[in-house]
Amino acid sequence: MIERGGQRLRAGMVGGGAGADIGKTHRFGMRLDDRYSLEAGVFGLDAGQAARVAESLGVAPERSYACYEEMAEAESARPDGIDVVVVATPNDSHFPIARAFLEKGIAVVCEKPLTGDSASAAELVRIAAENNVVLAVPHCYSAYPMVRHAARIIRDGALGRITFVDVEHASGWAATPLELTGHKQASWRTNPDIAGFPSVVADLGTHAYHLARYTTGLEAEEISGQLHTFVPGRRVFDNATVSLRLGGGVPARIWASMAATGHNHGLRIRIFGDAGSLEWQHEDPHHLSVQDLDGTTTILTHGLSTLSADAARLTRVGLGHPEGFLEAFANFYLDLADELTARRDGKPSTIRELSFPTGIDGLVGVQFVEAVAKSHANNGAWTVPANATSQEI
Amino acid sequence: MIERGGQRLRAGMVGGGAGADIGKTHRFGMRLDDRYSLEAGVFGLDAGQAARVAESLGVAPERSYACYEEMAEAESARPDGIDVVVVATPNDSHFPIARAFLEKGIAVVCEKPLTGDSASAAELVRIAAENNVVLAVPHCYSAYPMVRHAARIIRDGALGRITFVDVEHASGWAATPLELTGHKQASWRTNPDIAGFPSVVADLGTHAYHLARYTTGLEAEEISGQLHTFVPGRRVFDNATVSLRLGGGVPARIWASMAATGHNHGLRIRIFGDAGSLEWQHEDPHHLSVQDLDGTTTILTHGLSTLSADAARLTRVGLGHPEGFLEAFANFYLDLADELTARRDGKPSTIRELSFPTGIDGLVGVQFVEAVAKSHANNGAWTVPANATSQEI
Amino acid sequence: MIERGGQRLRAGMVGGGAGADIGKTHRFGMRLDDRYSLEAGVFGLDAGQAARVAESLGVAPERSYACYEEMAEAESARPDGIDVVVVATPNDSHFPIARAFLEKGIAVVCEKPLTGDSASAAELVRIAAENNVVLAVPHCYSAYPMVRHAARIIRDGALGRITFVDVEHASGWAATPLELTGHKQASWRTNPDIAGFPSVVADLGTHAYHLARYTTGLEAEEISGQLHTFVPGRRVFDNATVSLRLGGGVPARIWASMAATGHNHGLRIRIFGDAGSLEWQHEDPHHLSVQDLDGTTTILTHGLSTLSADAARLTRVGLGHPEGFLEAFANFYLDLADELTARRDGKPSTIRELSFPTGIDGLVGVQFVEAVAKSHANNGAWTVPANATSQEI
Amino acid sequence: MIERGGQRLRAGMVGGGAGADIGKTHRFGMRLDDRYSLEAGVFGLDAGQAARVAESLGVAPERSYACYEEMAEAESARPDGIDVVVVATPNDSHFPIARAFLEKGIAVVCEKPLTGDSASAAELVRIAAENNVVLAVPHCYSAYPMVRHAARIIRDGALGRITFVDVEHASGWAATPLELTGHKQASWRTNPDIAGFPSVVADLGTHAYHLARYTTGLEAEEISGQLHTFVPGRRVFDNATVSLRLGGGVPARIWASMAATGHNHGLRIRIFGDAGSLEWQHEDPHHLSVQDLDGTTTILTHGLSTLSADAARLTRVGLGHPEGFLEAFANFYLDLADELTARRDGKPSTIRELSFPTGIDGLVGVQFVEAVAKSHANNGAWTVPANATSQEI
Repeated sequence: MIERGGQRLRAGMVGGGAGADIGKTHRFGMRLDDRYSLEAGVFGLDAGQAARVAESLGVAPERSYACYEEMAEAESARPDGIDVVVVATPNDSHFPIARAFLEKGIAVVCEKPLTGDSASAAELVRIAAENNVVLAVPHCYSAYPMVRHAARIIRDGALGRITFVDVEHASGWAATPLELTGHKQASWRTNPDIAGFPSVVADLGTHAYHLARYTTGLEAEEISGQLHTFVPGRRVFDNATVSLRLGGGVPARIWASMAATGHNHGLRIRIFGDAGSLEWQHEDPHHLSVQDLDGTTTILTHGLSTLSADAARLTRVGLGHPEGFLEAFANFYLDLADELTARRDGKPSTIRELSFPTGIDGLVGVQFVEAVAKSHANNGAWTVPANATSQEI
Repeated sequence: MIERGGQRLRAGMVGGGAGADIGKTHRFGMRLDDRYSLEAGVFGLDAGQAARVAESLGVAPERSYACYEEMAEAESARPDGIDVVVVATPNDSHFPIARAFLEKGIAVVCEKPLTGDSASAAELVRIAAENNVVLAVPHCYSAYPMVRHAARIIRDGALGRITFVDVEHASGWAATPLELTGHKQASWRTNPDIAGFPSVVADLGTHAYHLARYTTGLEAEEISGQLHTFVPGRRVFDNATVSLRLGGGVPARIWASMAATGHNHGLRIRIFGDAGSLEWQHEDPHHLSVQDLDGTTTILTHGLSTLSADAARLTRVGLGHPEGFLEAFANFYLDLADELTARRDGKPSTIRELSFPTGIDGLVGVQFVEAVAKSHANNGAWTVPANATSQEI
Repeated sequence: MIERGGQRLRAGMVGGGAGADIGKTHRFGMRLDDRYSLEAGVFGLDAGQAARVAESLGVAPERSYACYEEMAEAESARPDGIDVVVVATPNDSHFPIARAFLEKGIAVVCEKPLTGDSASAAELVRIAAENNVVLAVPHCYSAYPMVRHAARIIRDGALGRITFVDVEHASGWAATPLELTGHKQASWRTNPDIAGFPSVVADLGTHAYHLARYTTGLEAEEISGQLHTFVPGRRVFDNATVSLRLGGGVPARIWASMAATGHNHGLRIRIFGDAGSLEWQHEDPHHLSVQDLDGTTTILTHGLSTLSADAARLTRVGLGHPEGFLEAFANFYLDLADELTARRDGKPSTIRELSFPTGIDGLVGVQFVEAVAKSHANNGAWTVPANATSQEI
Repeated sequence: MIERGGQRLRAGMVGGGAGADIGKTHRFGMRLDDRYSLEAGVFGLDAGQAARVAESLGVAPERSYACYEEMAEAESARPDGIDVVVVATPNDSHFPIARAFLEKGIAVVCEKPLTGDSASAAELVRIAAENNVVLAVPHCYSAYPMVRHAARIIRDGALGRITFVDVEHASGWAATPLELTGHKQASWRTNPDIAGFPSVVADLGTHAYHLARYTTGLEAEEISGQLHTFVPGRRVFDNATVSLRLGGGVPARIWASMAATGHNHGLRIRIFGDAGSLEWQHEDPHHLSVQDLDGTTTILTHGLSTLSADAARLTRVGLGHPEGFLEAFANFYLDLADELTARRDGKPSTIRELSFPTGIDGLVGVQFVEAVAKSHANNGAWTVPANATSQEI
């Protein structure tokens, strides 16, 4: 039963100008439940184009800024300044932008990978903590109701002791040399200076890794990774296979690809325990398949009256009416709105066990990317990731 | 590539107060693309509760009205009065409410069935035409991109000559006597005074019927219907099977049910031609299955670069990111916004071949309900529906 | 745990010569469990070709007969004569052939439709009963383990009171005018002199009808049918839609087609009750989907340890190893072998509740074809089928 | 168009007595197309039980032997001795039994793993070659028509350059400590003295590995493997994950498990190229899914008129009638029968490009098991398998 009005949060955005898909996705996610009002932004480097975007979004001209530094300065000085900023720029600019706002006490939603290296990611986490401000990372797949339900029943023991975890985010979106065609996203995602050499791990592998951690509650203790480049001439790695040893010695696999020809999206998670198993796929997100020891499969649907509260609270329409990717993004923003509103109003934190990913999760993701790259450089040798210890932000 | 800002349309709503799912759905649909601003409404009969809903939705207290007559009067008198009103009340009140606003020149979105009888439905169509105002009926399933694509390729001849049409909207939502439990929607939908005896035909059958018409472009020439009550003691019919003879002698079947035990939603359409066939299901709405004469099946996904413009224009995120029911509703509101904005700004009509359903479609739906009821009363005798001739609204 | 040897039954065949698929299917079915030995036959009208077929099948030259009359005479006179004959000829010859063997006391497996009219079908049933000999009709789909399981759990009340039955056997095999290409089966199946005008009802509709009866245990009390010809110029009806009122007033639908473009086979059954529903499809025959009142779906697989004995006894290999159409045919022949062996050895009948279809079922099928044709001739008027009362064969 | 009679091959069997599933499976496979006659065997160590099995299978008492040595001696001495023997005993006895028959010039079908170590497997291959006798290994999954079709279109370039291969044979059959319940197969498969420590690799991994080789035509150049024991107390490894570098540097993964809780069977293959990809699953064996660069999926069905000859020649019944595991086994035996008959009759070899697996394949499988075990012992270090060079048998 979603839809809460009340006083909306004031939001800003850096990035998400003309032609930027991810900025739009964030706006759809913020808009659906009407908890945010977009009031300020830096919508690109071209002043004219940025102004047109701002106007089309209803942002006042004086709050359409030329650069993030100016925006952070000005917004933090306004009595009606923004509560939260969304950083939706290419990877290499995440750090300075996020830092600028966090230092001003403005909450930050920063796209993954949080930064290009774990030192700077840890720095952001530290700054957020010091300033007592929320830093959130939109691993939005963990906001799907059926993923939440999976995480809940695993914690409740439905699968017994976990024995094996297998996650894939193997898309075919860049199975051709798209970067040669002028495709904007392909261009920067295959540029090692912006996206890093293990680009596919940073972009898609971190989603898969977060999903494994989120659903099982287990952390990786050792990682063995291989990186590949399927498209000849491509400057970054576009495919990765990773073996993992999770806590308690649970083996796991992750496959991340941007060149899995024919796949539309390719995010899937399968978790096995000694009492059952489950499977969830992003291309059929409103169902969760659960299998028992006998081999019987049960198909659960988003909206069923028998689901856990973690899933049920994220239901906007009745059983059989599929909610999709934008609703998952909206769920992320809904949980975030609860927390930001509570802080604004001096209420207790609303963060629950299965809530939105924070800077720690972003940092752990960057550490994952680094561990995979290091293992690959050592011909797949088992490598211990420098897992951040969990700490409140 | 959706997301257009600019000056938003001013919207009002009658119904959709506390506990009313369909009102919320309309608001989600209006909100997603930011083309509407909800400014006025009648949010229930209890004044206190209505005021709280209004406040939570950001509606100013003076525009939270006690009744629709007052609202139509006041809003039409304001310089900043609403452009469009959504009628989301139980069926029996559609007529007077829609009439009140249409007569004031305010566009109306009226839930199906448009009215309880075809005479009043035709009256609404007439009033809308006389006042040159838009009357739209949210058969939102026809706003799914893959349904649009199906309709397009059928018109383009991909299936050849149509030979058979089979549509189901067979849900299990009321397979138990829910109305005895105080369930709000079940209570009025099983009350013949509000929902009519052929309740399931009005509620779900009209969706199925519209989908058949929308995708094929064919109209029913003869109808043979049977009505059943599966739940003992229920006061209305909760299941209907209908045989149809569409234009050109094409046989068709419709099955509508609110008591198809176990079904989550149950909307599905299959269309056969002499050169191919296709199938679409609402519970997997981002795919369309097309079969050729050899028996090979092709699965198309929303977002594929090869889809028709009718589908492509309704794509908010990239391939493999499912959009669902709320996005379909948003598509309806998007097309409507284009038309209302064009009218407001004195621009040419934007209505295209495959656009939103209008009052005519609502009227034809009511005529369908009546024909099924009449046939049923005659033990299934073939009955000619009083199809409205298509006319501009 | 199938595989029983012992003394094999001696079998003969009429039809099933060069190019005849159904004859081969019967032989595969007989052969799999090694309960039959093919010893005699009439393998076509061309003597040379028939002899070659006989030789390839290991049938002795002197038992490769020129006509069925001779075969019935000679085999019934031999001390090692056949126990059972399979009639796998085009429809119009079923009656005289089956009669000839039944009168000689030889068991008959006769393809559906049993005969071209119910009088002659009833005559066969009568002759079989008088001679105390088995007459079986290979509606082999009812021999699939998961169909048997469905029938069992329905009888055990898993679905509660049955409310609706929907069966389709809508294939696309003859969606083009195959008969103009010299296609053997298409030629006779579209020849009204051989296959009858309601050819598709006799060929595929009887399978669907039998499946509805077999799984639910309900008989049709009234039938309303429409026949169509989708392929222009075709001499028979190639599509049929039928509404039924089963015992207890349960509504049902059957759709039979040989021109459902794109469908590979198209046999599917869905059964609804007030406590649950189930679905089975021939193109995924090793699974059965069961849905509960909440809307949860359970997928059962052939081979699961939790299945009923009716399904479990028909399992040749372990869980997860699909058995298909030939195994279903083999199941039919297995049950038949048990009964024929028991009779041969003077043991009690082995026929159980869910066993192979007999002449009665064949007769009821012919009565169904006639009722559909009669209703169609009366513009779909409700027609009472002359259901044979169940009687022992 | 299968079904050939003619003079049948004389077959024998060692193993496959009471309670042995795999022996039955072989018999079903041999029987279906009537190319073999079972004439001799060693059906267990208990003389009385073996005699009863022999009788039930129609094997003459004097050809029901006490041990394989006696059988090899006697059958090779008879003028009507067996042409081929099936070795269906637990793994540790494969070598001496197969050797005994090969040395006598009798063709051998030996279950995988061919032997427990590659030296003895190579010895069998050598003996078979020296004696010019067929040694076949029933990796029957490669005999499915849709697997053959996959292998064919890959060779024909439908997927372009192969980029990634992913195979799983992850079953849940032994996810519980079945061996403690007296379960016969579980007992010996978890006994390292019989099945080896990497039992799951030998049993299921070799199937997956063969499928990867068969479909792509690529061989493994390096292997990195991890072995796990999911069921506490189990004496062998019941789960394995393997990374591979195939010829040309193509990365691949194999996952083999007997403890993947909830999985019924779990064999699946996905192959990616720079022009397309495909997927096949054993639990839906009559379909093949092919995906193109755009992301469109095409579903092909066994029996389609458009399939390659490699698939079409293995079609027993028409489109839409599923054939399953026993038919795949029968396909293996059909190809083998062609070759054995040709040799018997002094005709040229019938072995084609995509034919049955031979001793070389069995040897390569054993080398795979050894390489995985060696890598595991070295903490997953990349290990070069001692791939047998392909040589004629």
